[in-house]
Amino acid sequence: MTVIEPLYSTPEMTAIFAPEEHVRQMLAFEAALARAEAQAGVIPPEAADEIAAVCQVELFDIPALYREAALAGTLAIPLVKHLTALVSGDARNWVHYGATSQDAIDTAMILQVRDALQLLLRQLGHIAAECARLARDHRHTLAPARTLLQHALPITFGLKAARWLAMLTRQMESLHALQRRALHVQLGGAAGTMASLGGRGQAVTMQLAAELGLDPASLPWHTERDRIGDIAATVGVVVGALGKIANDLILMLQTDVGEVSEAVVAGKGGSSAMPHKRNPVDTMMALASARLALGQVPVLLQTMIQEHERAIGGWQAEWEALPALFRYTSSAAARLHSAISGLTVDAERMRTNLDRTSGLLMAESLMTALAERIGRPQAFRLVQRASEQVLDAGESLRDAARADADIRAALSEAEIDQALDPLNYLGSTNHFIDAALAEYQALAAESSERSG
Amino acid sequence: MTVIEPLYSTPEMTAIFAPEEHVRQMLAFEAALARAEAQAGVIPPEAADEIAAVCQVELFDIPALYREAALAGTLAIPLVKHLTALVSGDARNWVHYGATSQDAIDTAMILQVRDALQLLLRQLGHIAAECARLARDHRHTLAPARTLLQHALPITFGLKAARWLAMLTRQMESLHALQRRALHVQLGGAAGTMASLGGRGQAVTMQLAAELGLDPASLPWHTERDRIGDIAATVGVVVGALGKIANDLILMLQTDVGEVSEAVVAGKGGSSAMPHKRNPVDTMMALASARLALGQVPVLLQTMIQEHERAIGGWQAEWEALPALFRYTSSAAARLHSAISGLTVDAERMRTNLDRTSGLLMAESLMTALAERIGRPQAFRLVQRASEQVLDAGESLRDAARADADIRAALSEAEIDQALDPLNYLGSTNHFIDAALAEYQALAAESSERSG
Amino acid sequence: MTVIEPLYSTPEMTAIFAPEEHVRQMLAFEAALARAEAQAGVIPPEAADEIAAVCQVELFDIPALYREAALAGTLAIPLVKHLTALVSGDARNWVHYGATSQDAIDTAMILQVRDALQLLLRQLGHIAAECARLARDHRHTLAPARTLLQHALPITFGLKAARWLAMLTRQMESLHALQRRALHVQLGGAAGTMASLGGRGQAVTMQLAAELGLDPASLPWHTERDRIGDIAATVGVVVGALGKIANDLILMLQTDVGEVSEAVVAGKGGSSAMPHKRNPVDTMMALASARLALGQVPVLLQTMIQEHERAIGGWQAEWEALPALFRYTSSAAARLHSAISGLTVDAERMRTNLDRTSGLLMAESLMTALAERIGRPQAFRLVQRASEQVLDAGESLRDAARADADIRAALSEAEIDQALDPLNYLGSTNHFIDAALAEYQALAAESSERSG
Amino acid sequence: MTVIEPLYSTPEMTAIFAPEEHVRQMLAFEAALARAEAQAGVIPPEAADEIAAVCQVELFDIPALYREAALAGTLAIPLVKHLTALVSGDARNWVHYGATSQDAIDTAMILQVRDALQLLLRQLGHIAAECARLARDHRHTLAPARTLLQHALPITFGLKAARWLAMLTRQMESLHALQRRALHVQLGGAAGTMASLGGRGQAVTMQLAAELGLDPASLPWHTERDRIGDIAATVGVVVGALGKIANDLILMLQTDVGEVSEAVVAGKGGSSAMPHKRNPVDTMMALASARLALGQVPVLLQTMIQEHERAIGGWQAEWEALPALFRYTSSAAARLHSAISGLTVDAERMRTNLDRTSGLLMAESLMTALAERIGRPQAFRLVQRASEQVLDAGESLRDAARADADIRAALSEAEIDQALDPLNYLGSTNHFIDAALAEYQALAAESSERSG
Repeated sequence: MTVIEPLYSTPEMTAIFAPEEHVRQMLAFEAALARAEAQAGVIPPEAADEIAAVCQVELFDIPALYREAALAGTLAIPLVKHLTALVSGDARNWVHYGATSQDAIDTAMILQVRDALQLLLRQLGHIAAECARLARDHRHTLAPARTLLQHALPITFGLKAARWLAMLTRQMESLHALQRRALHVQLGGAAGTMASLGGRGQAVTMQLAAELGLDPASLPWHTERDRIGDIAATVGVVVGALGKIANDLILMLQTDVGEVSEAVVAGKGGSSAMPHKRNPVDTMMALASARLALGQVPVLLQTMIQEHERAIGGWQAEWEALPALFRYTSSAAARLHSAISGLTVDAERMRTNLDRTSGLLMAESLMTALAERIGRPQAFRLVQRASEQVLDAGESLRDAARADADIRAALSEAEIDQALDPLNYLGSTNHFIDAALAEYQALAAESSERSG
Repeated sequence: MTVIEPLYSTPEMTAIFAPEEHVRQMLAFEAALARAEAQAGVIPPEAADEIAAVCQVELFDIPALYREAALAGTLAIPLVKHLTALVSGDARNWVHYGATSQDAIDTAMILQVRDALQLLLRQLGHIAAECARLARDHRHTLAPARTLLQHALPITFGLKAARWLAMLTRQMESLHALQRRALHVQLGGAAGTMASLGGRGQAVTMQLAAELGLDPASLPWHTERDRIGDIAATVGVVVGALGKIANDLILMLQTDVGEVSEAVVAGKGGSSAMPHKRNPVDTMMALASARLALGQVPVLLQTMIQEHERAIGGWQAEWEALPALFRYTSSAAARLHSAISGLTVDAERMRTNLDRTSGLLMAESLMTALAERIGRPQAFRLVQRASEQVLDAGESLRDAARADADIRAALSEAEIDQALDPLNYLGSTNHFIDAALAEYQALAAESSERSG
Repeated sequence: MTVIEPLYSTPEMTAIFAPEEHVRQMLAFEAALARAEAQAGVIPPEAADEIAAVCQVELFDIPALYREAALAGTLAIPLVKHLTALVSGDARNWVHYGATSQDAIDTAMILQVRDALQLLLRQLGHIAAECARLARDHRHTLAPARTLLQHALPITFGLKAARWLAMLTRQMESLHALQRRALHVQLGGAAGTMASLGGRGQAVTMQLAAELGLDPASLPWHTERDRIGDIAATVGVVVGALGKIANDLILMLQTDVGEVSEAVVAGKGGSSAMPHKRNPVDTMMALASARLALGQVPVLLQTMIQEHERAIGGWQAEWEALPALFRYTSSAAARLHSAISGLTVDAERMRTNLDRTSGLLMAESLMTALAERIGRPQAFRLVQRASEQVLDAGESLRDAARADADIRAALSEAEIDQALDPLNYLGSTNHFIDAALAEYQALAAESSERSG
Repeated sequence: MTVIEPLYSTPEMTAIFAPEEHVRQMLAFEAALARAEAQAGVIPPEAADEIAAVCQVELFDIPALYREAALAGTLAIPLVKHLTALVSGDARNWVHYGATSQDAIDTAMILQVRDALQLLLRQLGHIAAECARLARDHRHTLAPARTLLQHALPITFGLKAARWLAMLTRQMESLHALQRRALHVQLGGAAGTMASLGGRGQAVTMQLAAELGLDPASLPWHTERDRIGDIAATVGVVVGALGKIANDLILMLQTDVGEVSEAVVAGKGGSSAMPHKRNPVDTMMALASARLALGQVPVLLQTMIQEHERAIGGWQAEWEALPALFRYTSSAAARLHSAISGLTVDAERMRTNLDRTSGLLMAESLMTALAERIGRPQAFRLVQRASEQVLDAGESLRDAARADADIRAALSEAEIDQALDPLNYLGSTNHFIDAALAEYQALAAESSERSG
């Protein structure tokens, strides 16, 4: 964990993509390769045992490896060199046998991505659980819907949380699907033909994949980076979803809106100049992290255009961009979780805000009620007239409607009041909340079954 | 089709996203909505019939609609206004009933995306068929593998085509999966509650989805744009894959490589200054289109961060960026197909190129043969020494190896020749080609079954 | 102007980058080239006259040219072919003499960029004039500053407008500087050596540049695209600036803030579902356009990496991306201008909003006053305590301060009132407004002198 | 320097943007602010002295500061807290007086950018010097021009290097101009009004700017980020230029082209599988770094859209993206310099490549010679016919031309030979090389004068 990482990563994701972890996973590849090759009769079992025994990250000088990698152009060259030096006589012949640098690095990266996806899924699960709580708790908490940031009809805060929840549930399903389709071993040798394994390439690949718990790829994919693009794009959509939630919170956190606030914690969100200030630090850093994450996705899509059998530049950029994408995304998720789990919801303020437009939010409801009597075009005109009255004269829609002879000709006072009560104009809100909760619970049950 | 579109689109994709087609699909939404609402008992069947009867694009002045849309901020406002004017008395009350602008626009866009995905799948299928042909025809066509653009081991051109094919097969599967998960109807009304439909919202949604052949969404998704992000990201990976193939062709089309050439067509690829020039226009425009397409993906991921219940800016940018993404992608696919279907493959030149490094490509093979006798580290050193001899003295590896006493101590001349024959060092090449062909054929069979 | 362009362009910018305009500018290049070559003694004057005489866009079938361009890979091929067909005998030898396709296309594009920059400068000038008006008119209009969207200290709306103005002034200077450094003729011939012009290349270039009113480039720049990158990057910063202003307006336009509103125009900003709704269409489309524009900048930076003496893909992508960037930017500017020129500023609401935090915005002022008596750390603590009192008990800071014995020990009631009056705590606000106005006026004077 | 940074940064740039350096520059701001405020009579001179005395980075626990910053949302909060704790009694009142967190952080960032720009300029200067050398040394080294990667006319390698040089010279001028316009102090206080400095804000700003050697800004620019966008965009164009050069080298380094090679260094560019392989590591990492750098530019343009008086998310993303941009760019520059300074140029191979198309490169020259006799259209046709003969029958253009009766009717054998000699068809090549060298030398002289 570098000094600056607390701002844009989580300790867990930083650990997954730490240099020593990359080396550890490369060594896991080398050990598994040796074992798989021994099993397939390619190399002697004793050599495999000896190689596997020294595939321990503690035996390597990580900073030195990276310095040598900068010169060699790949971490695998110095790693294999030092690994070879650790084994004796005959085993030296069989270190990294039949593999190319990219086999070790790609497979290690995929192992890291596997861990990263599990972490992201846990993080999304925690946020989703909070959204489910908010959806349930605020099922009846009235608030203004805002379209184009203008108050529209009433909704409940629970519905907003339910929409977030439904999106997070879809994104967790998306990450589960990604786990199933993107985690493949890489093994192809220098030119992707497994030439030096003769006819035993498939056997080694199957065994290697089994050793590492990855899918065997039916072909090497050194420069067909659609799986990497897929990972980047899928995580990009996840982080877009996190950004949407963070941004909604930010909009509600505005002093002028005041519908929610972040938890007060000592040392958090103060101002160096204004003692009264409580800055929404978590949502702010969630959005900052999301923007940084989104910046990595196009890099990883652009670098899909890789040359022939090994890229020059594009693949090497992945080593930096893919970990960065995961770190920023994990940071966004952690910050969003912190914000949402400590959120104070001000139901009273929501209700106050709802009334801010003097009942205009209920104009559609009034129009619907009117339309049943006098047709939609005419109802539209009457309500528009009454609305203008509200805007111009500052009275409430209730008063304007009651004072409008044409409206009164169609509706009684009680009918007007009925039409202007937000609780009577929530449509399918409850149904939607139930649907989101049901989908979430089904996924949660399935996930706990899987891991149980 | 605007004047400039031949350069960056296909007529088919231009038609799918033409303004009149967008209006046509919005009218399909309005007609289906009316019918669904009649079926659910929300509006009178006669009104629905009357509305559906005038939902014909020919009745609308498209340029005028777009001019009014620029003022209104959405196409739905003028469309609904003109549609309402087309029906008589009572039916006017029920036009667009319970819906909001975004319901019509989003659903129309999804219907267009449905057509666009089918078109892309057809286009990818055609390219894949060509790759399959190349993989079969050039299974034994020797060529140099190139890693970091340096000659590495021998492969066959068939293997390269097979890798492209495997990637395209995966991308077609990816688009099929996208079709299954992203094509949802949008219906939520002004604030996403379907307030004006009372308790009949779900019934209307189910019927509307059935009418249009789309999935009903369990919740409205006005600002939860993960499905749009998903479409953009998935197509982005497709276009990255197309770009990789185009770029490989471009590299092979270089005068200095000359392993393939585009078909010669009158008026194509000439030079205004050089009469002998044959420019690779299709691959060039494929790559140009791919770059433009990739530029739209981040726009569509960034705009996922949409405000509350209706976005201000982000959604409106989608209207331009999503069609652009599909047009550019279709252009890239069409150009790539044109290039690859008319490709002349120069097997002789590939073989000449393979020999360009005086046999150095077979160094690994020689090392492998040596390693069996004297161990890998020692073999590595001997072959490196012989290779340097080749590089310095300009002789062939065959001669250098035969002249090296240490190598000759380990291998006979015949064994050296055997080790230096590229045909003996192709490893799993055939297996990989077979695997790619099998996966492709399985998908093709499945697809034809589906559509059959 | 295509049907969809009213949404994302202006008629003026659409005209500048229309296909027929591109052809017109290419013909301007061909005519000027012929004249320059005649002047330099390279071609016969009669031939130049004859060529120049038919360089009229009306003589060409634009859609046909573009269809042929799609096949040829460049518009110059069919253009030169048809142009040659329009002249007689000997002149045919001298059409496009010594030039390459890219010479004509790049120079035409630069001529279009020249017009585009002038248009953008006019558009920015109009927005700046409105900002200057707002800065002057609202010099004393109190409003809450918002940091992290939380109310901070008081400012005036005039200061906000002055900051926008200062930024626009800088951006106009930036575009002026771009005009001076980026508008160069392109002339290099097939390989950038002007080989077929023999020793008269420089003379032709100088004359050609003079004819077209462009700078001569000291070297051809077919693949050194830093000038194109410079144009894209500079315009990208402009559009970022426009986006910032649009976004500030959007935040102030929120129903919950209500400090400004867009002009009410028939047909503008209504809602298909809510008759009372007035949607902020101009700011919305300004932001949508800005996002689209920003999406083109990375495309144009990525495509700077062009191959050897003529790019394959990168240059061809510019033809689409550069006009798109200008169209979107012009749209953003036009929409922003429309919003800001018709803006209603609600000074009363600003003042109401300022008081929304019960005087907490004046906490720093109170702390400053206190600090002079009891030191900053102690003052910070006292004000924080009083602020918490405000937040917890709902009283005003004025009351909390007066009731706090420690504060009262340091300040009298009158001193507290004095410290809590926003008008006494505006620091350098007036100075900043004056500075922004002065810089703007200096630039405006200079510009009018230049064009006068 | 983190473990991974050798791959994507330089030690110098890593040092400039190291966390401790950021803190050091923030302390430089705090010290200069205190001194400036003392000078302006805002705070007591003794307090300023005491504050300045402890503004030493060694007195701070950097990792702890960053951990606290993650909670506080800004580094300035914990920094000011710890700084205040380091001074005694009265001075505590005057630490960070009148400033806001962003004043300290932005000014520190600008000080870091100042150092970063100087470093980049030095790096570009070194690359330019190498290009100048190549331009001079290879003024007459014939090579094929390549347009769309197809051999076109002959050029010299010196011309290619001269074009790189001219671009680098322009980019150095661009960075110099950026230094003059973008390095401004930030000082505005909590809301950008300098409220707590009363009437002495300007005096403090002027003095602060003088202390730090920065320009005073006429207005605070907390959310008007055009200067940051300008820095990002300008550096983005620089890195695009570096990428172009790196990519040209990569294309020339291909085994199939072989016109240049990177220096051979022990441990560099070997292959884990192929002992003979010499991978072009420096150009590869230059391109990888350039791609990563280009990925940061859109992030920094997007984040220009900052809210009101302090951004929530956008500004905070800059802290990561701006240093990353500089690190990647410095890495690209260092790698490119390493590649180009150790470059082996194979003039013989260039000449061989030039002949690869059997003289077709000279077709334009032949056409020009013919055109003088028989007109351009006819000449075009004859040369096209002869060229097709070359392509179909495999003979040289020389032989085809000599055998063509129509050509022979226009030109003698000697004239044909004359027309086919590349040295006679280089046009303005020498002039362009001279121009590039002259511009470079003028800039170099000016720069050394400035720093001398």
